[in-house]
Amino acid sequence: MTIFSTILDGEIPCHRVYEDDHVLAFLDVGPLSRGHTLVIPKERVATMGELSDDAAAALGRALPRVCRAVMQATGCTDYNLLQNNGATAHQAVMHVHVHIIPKYSDGTGLSLQWNAGALDEPEALAVAIATALE
Amino acid sequence: MTIFSTILDGEIPCHRVYEDDHVLAFLDVGPLSRGHTLVIPKERVATMGELSDDAAAALGRALPRVCRAVMQATGCTDYNLLQNNGATAHQAVMHVHVHIIPKYSDGTGLSLQWNAGALDEPEALAVAIATALE
Repeated sequence: MTIFSTILDGEIPCHRVYEDDHVLAFLDVGPLSRGHTLVIPKERVATMGELSDDAAAALGRALPRVCRAVMQATGCTDYNLLQNNGATAHQAVMHVHVHIIPKYSDGTGLSLQWNAGALDEPEALAVAIATALE
Repeated sequence: MTIFSTILDGEIPCHRVYEDDHVLAFLDVGPLSRGHTLVIPKERVATMGELSDDAAAALGRALPRVCRAVMQATGCTDYNLLQNNGATAHQAVMHVHVHIIPKYSDGTGLSLQWNAGALDEPEALAVAIATALE
């Protein structure tokens, strides 16, 4: 049971912007910027890796429309989508949620640090991932 | 034309981990952490908001499987998904791409700053977004 389950059950309100059979979208109550919106599947799992193929497809299908609407309503043009899995990765609510975070020209929005490295033994790693997918 | 179009056309190689009719996944050549993988639609548009519903659904459908495989191959448990839209939002390649970035217990991975604010006139904003979705 998470706060998002409680919202899905209608027991606490949300600022709803979109809903279909598989997905609900509503304003984040602690926004990083104006228009910060959460899109959640109605399937109740914690992480992307646990989501069923069909629930993930329905979540993906809703994203372009919700993104366009958030940008139209805010007048912002640039934005980040972020989805965290696990406490180490900053996940606070253990129900899958995609953040849509408008990024304004004054810098308001998601702030990232990008400390890119180099690939180490990429052939073996790619084979290991591809094998795990089979 | 972007570097990802060139990869899709087979003109330059990639460290491929997954491919289906609508989606390609491969290792990021400048990883934030071991296993950093990109998942891209074969539909050639720059941003999530421009993606067709069907291409977005296919992209979403692939994500859980690729996430599970990356985590299985790396032994990592936590991870972030990030998708940037527009130069202000740190997008460097103008073809939609979802980063899957393992977050290790030593902190290696995506670093975020989370400067959350409070909702300002949420009812009007939610109505504006919902109306844009109609």
